[in-house]
Amino acid sequence: MQPPIITLTTDFGTADTFVGAMKGVILGIAPDAQIIDLSHEVPPQDVQAGAFALASAYRYFPPGTIHVAVVDPGVGTRRHPVAVTTNGATFICPDNGLLSYPLDEARAFVDRPPFVMGRVALPHDWHAVHLSNADYWLQPPSSTFHGRDIFAPVAGHLAAGVAIAAMGTRVLDLAAFALPRPRSAGDTSIGQLLHVDHFGNLITNLHPANLPDGQQLEIRVGGAAIAGISETYQDGVDLVALIGSSGTLEIAFRNGNAARTLGVAVGADVHVISRG
Amino acid sequence: MQPPIITLTTDFGTADTFVGAMKGVILGIAPDAQIIDLSHEVPPQDVQAGAFALASAYRYFPPGTIHVAVVDPGVGTRRHPVAVTTNGATFICPDNGLLSYPLDEARAFVDRPPFVMGRVALPHDWHAVHLSNADYWLQPPSSTFHGRDIFAPVAGHLAAGVAIAAMGTRVLDLAAFALPRPRSAGDTSIGQLLHVDHFGNLITNLHPANLPDGQQLEIRVGGAAIAGISETYQDGVDLVALIGSSGTLEIAFRNGNAARTLGVAVGADVHVISRG
Amino acid sequence: MQPPIITLTTDFGTADTFVGAMKGVILGIAPDAQIIDLSHEVPPQDVQAGAFALASAYRYFPPGTIHVAVVDPGVGTRRHPVAVTTNGATFICPDNGLLSYPLDEARAFVDRPPFVMGRVALPHDWHAVHLSNADYWLQPPSSTFHGRDIFAPVAGHLAAGVAIAAMGTRVLDLAAFALPRPRSAGDTSIGQLLHVDHFGNLITNLHPANLPDGQQLEIRVGGAAIAGISETYQDGVDLVALIGSSGTLEIAFRNGNAARTLGVAVGADVHVISRG
Repeated sequence: MQPPIITLTTDFGTADTFVGAMKGVILGIAPDAQIIDLSHEVPPQDVQAGAFALASAYRYFPPGTIHVAVVDPGVGTRRHPVAVTTNGATFICPDNGLLSYPLDEARAFVDRPPFVMGRVALPHDWHAVHLSNADYWLQPPSSTFHGRDIFAPVAGHLAAGVAIAAMGTRVLDLAAFALPRPRSAGDTSIGQLLHVDHFGNLITNLHPANLPDGQQLEIRVGGAAIAGISETYQDGVDLVALIGSSGTLEIAFRNGNAARTLGVAVGADVHVISRG
Repeated sequence: MQPPIITLTTDFGTADTFVGAMKGVILGIAPDAQIIDLSHEVPPQDVQAGAFALASAYRYFPPGTIHVAVVDPGVGTRRHPVAVTTNGATFICPDNGLLSYPLDEARAFVDRPPFVMGRVALPHDWHAVHLSNADYWLQPPSSTFHGRDIFAPVAGHLAAGVAIAAMGTRVLDLAAFALPRPRSAGDTSIGQLLHVDHFGNLITNLHPANLPDGQQLEIRVGGAAIAGISETYQDGVDLVALIGSSGTLEIAFRNGNAARTLGVAVGADVHVISRG
Repeated sequence: MQPPIITLTTDFGTADTFVGAMKGVILGIAPDAQIIDLSHEVPPQDVQAGAFALASAYRYFPPGTIHVAVVDPGVGTRRHPVAVTTNGATFICPDNGLLSYPLDEARAFVDRPPFVMGRVALPHDWHAVHLSNADYWLQPPSSTFHGRDIFAPVAGHLAAGVAIAAMGTRVLDLAAFALPRPRSAGDTSIGQLLHVDHFGNLITNLHPANLPDGQQLEIRVGGAAIAGISETYQDGVDLVALIGSSGTLEIAFRNGNAARTLGVAVGADVHVISRG
C-alpha cells in the first residue's frame, strides 16, 4: 500500500518548531505518512497569499493527498476548522478563504469585486465538515495553535483511515475571497498581479484566452512597456513577458528581478494592448 | 513495522548542505528513517536557544523518536558527544546544556541563578553514554562537523537497532543551564521571556500556577501595561496577554509584532500584578 | 526493498511552492521515494554556487541515490536537460556546468583558467542521456519550469525503475567549469575561496597536499595573517585556519563571522607561506 501524503502550508516560518511539532503529532497517529512542506513562508496572517500558495501546488500531488493549510489570524475565535474533500484532494484548514482558488475553479460563485470575502455554496461533488469532534484533537487543545492541536491530528487520523464524516458536522458553504477577474476594454485586456515569486517574477491572472487578438501585443505594468510575448526568460534584453509555469502571463527581468526593477506589488494592474 | 523517526535541530541554516549531508549519512545506515527538521535556524552557537527549540517540540513526537541536536560551538574540543535515553525519547547531542529543559522537567537539579551552567546528576530513569566508540562514526571524522561524522551515523545506527550501550561509556551526569524561575513578591509574579517567535510573540516562563490570585491582573513588559488575560489573539485592540501554546503566559500584538513594538528580547522581565 | 532516495538542489527558495510542486510530481510516480532537500537557497541563477552545493553533499548519500539539481538560467533555451549515471550516483540536471566538481574528480578534463566553461568528454564509467523522450515528462511542459515538468517526473520514473537509456539519446560530453587550481610559488601556495558558509567560514580549494612544507605556516587572506593551522574552531583568539569538514583549508573566526570580518568573497586568493 502506498504511504499517505500530507502537505503543509503555513505562515509559521521555519525558525520556530511549530511545523516540527505538527509533524510529530501527525507521525504519532500515521507513522508512515509522507509529509511534504509546500511553504511555511506565507507572510504572517496573509490569508490571500496562503490561498495562492496552496493553489499553486496542490494540483501536482496525486489523488488522495491531504493538504493542511494554516494561515489563521482568527485562531481560537468563531471561525470554524474544516475538512473538505473534493474531486481528488482533501483540504484541512480554517474556514477563512484559504480554499478560494479551488472553489473558483469549481465555479462555485459569481463575480464580485476583487478580494471581497463571502460565503459560497459547496460545489456538488465536494463534501465538508466542521471539525467539531474533539475525539480527534490533541487534548486539551490550546486556543492559539490549532495547527498542532486540531489540524495535525485530524490529518493524521484521516491518513490513518478515519472517515471525514466522523470528524464533525456537515457544512454546506465555505468562506471565499472573490478573486480578481481580467477585464477587456476595446483592444486592451486588464489583469492583476496575483503573486511575486522568489525571482521577482510577476505572476498575473491573465490566461492566454484572456489576451486580445493580434500579432503585436504590448504589455504595460509599473510604467514599463514590453513588446510581445516571448518563449523563454532569455528572450529579449531585460524585461520579458511570457506564459509562465502557472499557465498565465508572467513578467520577468532577464537574469534579474522584475518586481524590484518595476517597484510593483500584488494587486497592481497589468494592461495588454493589441497594436495590430 | 513502523519506520524510525529522527528529528534534527541545528544552527546550520538551510543555505549550505550541512543538513543534507547529515541526512545522507543517516539514510545510508537506516534507509527507512523518517527524518524531520525541527529547526535549523537556531542563532549560530546559541546553545540556550537550541535547548528551547528542542524542548518546544520533542514532546509531540511518539515514544522511541530519536532527537539529534547540534548547536556545538565547542565541536572538536573536550566537550563530549552523548546519547541519552529518557522515559520516551532518545537524544543525541553534544553535552553542553542542550538538554536543560528535559533535565529541568525531570527535576534533576536545584535552583541556581538564571542561565548558569553546571553539571547535574542523571534522573533515575535516564541512561546516557559518551559516544566514544568510533566504530559507529564516519571515518575519519572531521574535527569541525560532528553533526555529519558522529551524531548522524550514531542516530542511524540507533534507528537501525544498535543498543545505546554499544555506542560508548556510561555517563552519570550531564551539563545543564539553570533555567530562570518565576518569583513572587506580594501581589506580583515576576517571570522572564524565554523566546520570541516568528510572529514576534513573547513566550514567558510563567505557568498559570505561577500567576497571582485575583480577578484583575495587569501584565507589565517593556514599559507597556496590559489589562487581563485573554482567550485568543483577536481579543483586545493591540497588545494581548494569553496562555499560549507552550502552556505559559504569552504576550502578542493583534495582527502585529509584539517584540518589535515593545523592543524587548529574551531574558527581559515580565511582571504580573494582581489589582483585586 | 529500500525506498529510493531523491535529493533536490535548486535556486527556487522556499517561500514559493516550486519545490513542493516538484515533490508532488515525484510522489505521483514514485510514492515511496525518500525526497531530501540539499539546498534551495543557491543564489538565483548562480550555476557555480549550485555546483558547489551539489558537490558538497552528494557523496554522503548511499549508492543509487538520484540527485536532481536545477539552477537553470537557460531554461527553455537550447541547453539540454540530462540524466547522468556515475560510479554510485545518478544526476538529473540541465547540462550547464552543475556537474563540474564530480567531472573534475573523475579527472575528465585538463586545466583551464578558473571558471571558464567548456565541454568535456564523459569519464569512461559514466553514462549520460539528453532527456529528449517526452513520454517521461509532465504534459504539456512549460518553457519556464523544467524542474517540475521534466526533471521531477524523470527522477520519479528512474526511482520507479525505468532505465536511463529509455529517457533519451546518448550524450558523450558535458558542460563544465574549469575549477580554480591551487598554484605554488617558492615557499608559498596560493588557493582560492570556493564558498562562504552560513557561519561566515571561508572554504578554500587547498587540500593538505597543496600546502607548503614547514612547521610554521602563515595564512594570508583579505589583508589578515594567521599563524599556523589549528585543530578546532576554539583554538586561537579570533581568526583561525584549520582543515575543515570539506577536507580543505578553511578560515573561521572564533564564535564569529570570518567573511564579514575580512570582507572577502568567493574567488578571493588565499596565500599559505612557509616560515620555516
